[in-house]
Amino acid sequence: MRVLGVDPGLTRCGVGVVEGVAGRPLTMLGVGVVRTPSDAELGQRLVAVEQGIERWLDEHRPEFVAVERVFSQHNVRTVMGTAQASAVAMLCAARRGIPVALHTPSEVKAAVTGSGRADKAQVGAMVTRLLRLDAPPKPADAADALALAICHIWRAPAQNRLQQAVALHATRSPITSKGRTA
Amino acid sequence: MRVLGVDPGLTRCGVGVVEGVAGRPLTMLGVGVVRTPSDAELGQRLVAVEQGIERWLDEHRPEFVAVERVFSQHNVRTVMGTAQASAVAMLCAARRGIPVALHTPSEVKAAVTGSGRADKAQVGAMVTRLLRLDAPPKPADAADALALAICHIWRAPAQNRLQQAVALHATRSPITSKGRTA
Repeated sequence: MRVLGVDPGLTRCGVGVVEGVAGRPLTMLGVGVVRTPSDAELGQRLVAVEQGIERWLDEHRPEFVAVERVFSQHNVRTVMGTAQASAVAMLCAARRGIPVALHTPSEVKAAVTGSGRADKAQVGAMVTRLLRLDAPPKPADAADALALAICHIWRAPAQNRLQQAVALHATRSPITSKGRTA
Repeated sequence: MRVLGVDPGLTRCGVGVVEGVAGRPLTMLGVGVVRTPSDAELGQRLVAVEQGIERWLDEHRPEFVAVERVFSQHNVRTVMGTAQASAVAMLCAARRGIPVALHTPSEVKAAVTGSGRADKAQVGAMVTRLLRLDAPPKPADAADALALAICHIWRAPAQNRLQQAVALHATRSPITSKGRTA
């Protein structure tokens, strides 16, 4: 499974590509940051994010794109730009028919460090270890993008089993099915 | 001046095209709503918004696109979808080189009704009057999109004068210019 992780942002949009399956060593195929100038107009910045994401999709042809789920509660000052950059990333993937998964920051931290409240340094250290890198990727946005991709690879089997169980339950429970279509 | 107004939203994205100049009667060229199914995946909904906006740009070839400025403070439940839909609208315009302007809800209300705290019914009534329509456009998102376009047409001359004054001031004040480039 090849996953492009995207840590969305207008000024710095972290991107990282990881290949592997749960339970096996993972391989980093690429990591970087899509940057847009903060003094450019918002529309132009979104075009620059789109061009950057398109280049990463062209080069690495991921099967999944994992984007950090943006919440409106925190970082009120920057949340709008984050939401807009994430929309562009999701749009680029969905246009190509690539499935998009959203993971919350605490899901990502829990997946790679075991704790949903781990700090940036811990996440960077675990990403470095799991991908057998020489040093933590810089900036933190790039490391976070790799953590998102790892999180997706590790969570995917559980999510698939859950979907299969739900689908199986639906076919075995005519009452539930009736209730939902009524 | 031909302006496409966009009242962004994932479920209903209001769109309206108005032609005219400040101080002259205005003409409505089109009004509608781009809808996406709430049970579709987020990426697919963003693709549907993009396709809808592209159709409006193709059909009406506006010189400006006016989008409602989204704030993170209010409507926390829906603000993410609104921000994401607005990003798609801005992206579509900027990709074509069409200037994008953002206007706040109170700027729009003040422009068309004289009060920044006007309600939906007042805005609908004034849009109906200013564009000489038989009835207020439904739903409210469609009326709001027309109000955004009207607001842009009426505010544009003042904004242009302001920009010209700032530019003139910059050329006449070498100290300020030095300070900014230092």
